[in-house]
Amino acid sequence: MSLKKTEAAFHEHMKKLSAYEQAIGLMHWDARTGAPKKGADQRSEVLGLLSTELFKLKTSEETGEYIHTLLESGAENTVSSITTKATEELKKEYDRSKKIPEDEFKEYSVLTSKTESVWEEAKENNDFETFQPYLEKIVDFNRKFAEYWGYEGHPYNALIEDYEPGMTVDKLDDVFGRLRNGLIPLVEGVTSSPHKPDTSFLFEHFPKEKQRAFSLDILEQMTYDFKAGRLDETVHPFAIGLNPNDVRVTTKYDENDFRTAVFGTIHEGGHALYEQNLSEKLEGTVLCDGTSMGIHESQSLFYENFVGRNRSFWERNYDLLKSYSNGQFDDVALDRFYHAINEAKPSLIRIEADEMTYSLHIILRYEMEKALISGDLQVKDLPRVWNEKMEEYLGVTPPNNSKGVLQDVHWSFGAFGYFPSYALGYIYAAQLKNAMLKDIPTFDDHCLRGELAPIKEWLTENVHQHGRMKKPEEILKDATGEGVNPVHLLTYLKEKYKGLYQF
Amino acid sequence: MSLKKTEAAFHEHMKKLSAYEQAIGLMHWDARTGAPKKGADQRSEVLGLLSTELFKLKTSEETGEYIHTLLESGAENTVSSITTKATEELKKEYDRSKKIPEDEFKEYSVLTSKTESVWEEAKENNDFETFQPYLEKIVDFNRKFAEYWGYEGHPYNALIEDYEPGMTVDKLDDVFGRLRNGLIPLVEGVTSSPHKPDTSFLFEHFPKEKQRAFSLDILEQMTYDFKAGRLDETVHPFAIGLNPNDVRVTTKYDENDFRTAVFGTIHEGGHALYEQNLSEKLEGTVLCDGTSMGIHESQSLFYENFVGRNRSFWERNYDLLKSYSNGQFDDVALDRFYHAINEAKPSLIRIEADEMTYSLHIILRYEMEKALISGDLQVKDLPRVWNEKMEEYLGVTPPNNSKGVLQDVHWSFGAFGYFPSYALGYIYAAQLKNAMLKDIPTFDDHCLRGELAPIKEWLTENVHQHGRMKKPEEILKDATGEGVNPVHLLTYLKEKYKGLYQF
Repeated sequence: MSLKKTEAAFHEHMKKLSAYEQAIGLMHWDARTGAPKKGADQRSEVLGLLSTELFKLKTSEETGEYIHTLLESGAENTVSSITTKATEELKKEYDRSKKIPEDEFKEYSVLTSKTESVWEEAKENNDFETFQPYLEKIVDFNRKFAEYWGYEGHPYNALIEDYEPGMTVDKLDDVFGRLRNGLIPLVEGVTSSPHKPDTSFLFEHFPKEKQRAFSLDILEQMTYDFKAGRLDETVHPFAIGLNPNDVRVTTKYDENDFRTAVFGTIHEGGHALYEQNLSEKLEGTVLCDGTSMGIHESQSLFYENFVGRNRSFWERNYDLLKSYSNGQFDDVALDRFYHAINEAKPSLIRIEADEMTYSLHIILRYEMEKALISGDLQVKDLPRVWNEKMEEYLGVTPPNNSKGVLQDVHWSFGAFGYFPSYALGYIYAAQLKNAMLKDIPTFDDHCLRGELAPIKEWLTENVHQHGRMKKPEEILKDATGEGVNPVHLLTYLKEKYKGLYQF
Repeated sequence: MSLKKTEAAFHEHMKKLSAYEQAIGLMHWDARTGAPKKGADQRSEVLGLLSTELFKLKTSEETGEYIHTLLESGAENTVSSITTKATEELKKEYDRSKKIPEDEFKEYSVLTSKTESVWEEAKENNDFETFQPYLEKIVDFNRKFAEYWGYEGHPYNALIEDYEPGMTVDKLDDVFGRLRNGLIPLVEGVTSSPHKPDTSFLFEHFPKEKQRAFSLDILEQMTYDFKAGRLDETVHPFAIGLNPNDVRVTTKYDENDFRTAVFGTIHEGGHALYEQNLSEKLEGTVLCDGTSMGIHESQSLFYENFVGRNRSFWERNYDLLKSYSNGQFDDVALDRFYHAINEAKPSLIRIEADEMTYSLHIILRYEMEKALISGDLQVKDLPRVWNEKMEEYLGVTPPNNSKGVLQDVHWSFGAFGYFPSYALGYIYAAQLKNAMLKDIPTFDDHCLRGELAPIKEWLTENVHQHGRMKKPEEILKDATGEGVNPVHLLTYLKEKYKGLYQF
């Protein structure tokens, strides 16, 4: 077969992979939005079967041959850059899967699927001891995988690669260290400040349907394309892109705290804008996706924090919010409202943390993950170390393990290397905001007028469209002129919270 | 491999087939309920790709070997009856697909997919001439397929087999002939009767949300299990069972004619009860499905007509309907209402036909299909023959082909042999009703009290649970003691409409 023909066949092959991904994606979305309860077991089984089929396809001899042929020396002169890049991306996954002995991979799959339910019960019963032996096995597997996959420097580097390609322990130690050292005094500042916001008015009854109407208005303002998407209700909100023409947002309504839906929708809307604005040229290829967890999170956090917690945004939208509410804001001036939704204070639970303290929750997890993988920390010591770090960074100590080391699901399914992306995303977002201001110095005016299109367009130009054609660091450097740098985030937080809390 | 091991592997194989079917089913449901418009093309492509994968699996060597091994003489003594039956069902499909040369099948697939859009335009423009050459090719293909597949007696038998296994032209000629001869005088009776119902009050504004609430109440009454299903809105209503624990109903709301949603929901609800009550033992096998189009339709028509158009049912539910309406029934006594929703009159469009005239629309299509396949009728003569038969059977002549021969989509995708199932389903339903009355003489009382569980249980016992373990004729004989027989339907219609129209 000529190289050109192989290239065409390869693209057909990727379309097939994409078909499986889309079917699996839709089944996940359906299971988490409105699928009948009784069908849950069958759905899990079907998802398992089709995921296995997809995995087989990705690691098939056919895939291997495409990789071999299309990456042969000189091939890049004949095939498109999209083809070359896509082949490289598939090769990464292919090579990784081939390096793990099949029986070990199977054992690991069974283990993680079992451990997720063990974790669920352990969390419910505040019972770390039952969870411990499972987690120990998972850590051991991940240490072994790192060796199979290979790495330079720290073994943890082999694991981060799955979530944030190109990121390393050296870089993270530097960046997270600086961020941590900058954040701790800020936490102390807000904690000791007498200028705390009154938040009591936030928790009044706000009917679900009205929250939905407001959420729809805000998505519209964000230029989310409803002809290529929809908004549904779920328990753990997410956004999912089946393809750029079908990107769905989900949210959760708490009738006694409207913030859950509002900020949740804006956050997921940010993810969705990334997926809706991937370049058409990438459709049907493995490149038609966010380039990393960190860059994806930078988009959601950009909108959630730099747009959604921006004063100008609320100058524009506070009256709209009021019009949907049952009057809970009637006696609340904008400034009071603005401070209330930007309350910062140390807390125990990551997913409930505010934008200022959030990164500390992540850094603490990163430090422990790294030490588990290097062998410097034992699973049995996790609860103690967790509590010590919480006290050191945030000045609070969990009353029990359920509200401490057991709070997150991630480790139970073996996602070591995932947590850093959350804080990286936030650092990236601040860097992007800083760069965007040079091109769009009128950023706040756009928020004030509810005209967010230029913001989306800038992000599409610099981030969205490229999909996986660019690595995270390339995206960052091309858009901002520098590599990962926590200074911009720290500056933003310092300025904002010193103002709000007057310290 | 031992036979027992082969059997276990075969069941795993069927689970995989079922996983594809369920994914494809969900994607169809989603596309027809709430999927974003812009994603339509991608969805079609994905559906095409996964359907091809499923087809490949079903006709794979692996499937061939299971068939070969599990149907070997004596195998049935070792494996379960479910395994034997499932293998036989798969063999039918496998053999049929192997008998058509691959390039012809491909050509036919392209042709039918193209013809569907040609038909759509032809119908819109009342342009039979453009459609004619496409339909001629489709008829030719179907005549060829009949020869490839083989048949006894009439070549049309080879085609019906796909939709109503065991049914033949001989039987249909007899049954449909008697039905037609019994119906024509009834049509004349209602047409010439001066006792026509006043239907004007049917067409008042009935808000969509209220129609939905009523639809939900009625599904509940039918014992549809909402934990294993849901009700959504669509353009062309359908029910779909992904598996017995996930069976979804869709309906359409016409705010100026509540009947569309009410009778549509009851109809689809009947289909859904079949799928929800398939035996657990059949789950994950190819037998976990309705046994034929005709038997499936018998379930929907049973509920639509024998429950939903029953006077007792409305004695129970008329006040409920009133409570949801905007007052359109305030001055309408139950008897007037009952006659109005049972209006019978000749009309042009099959899908709008009432329960009395409906079968004549089907019989006319059957007679023409049969003649096309035998070669006794040419495609070019269809419009003329169609109009002649409409005049002969129903006393009406279509003003144009769009409202005549071009009205249905079926032929454009090659579904020759499908139409008879609609009328067969109705005949079956009347037979089942007749048999049910012997076990449940209090049928009307159950409708009156809104306690429909015994009716569902009888149908589950006699029809639902068996899935494809029994052929349509076995279902019928075991449940009613006789083969297909139009007498019960004719008796029902004669009694009901002579009463209503006093002739």
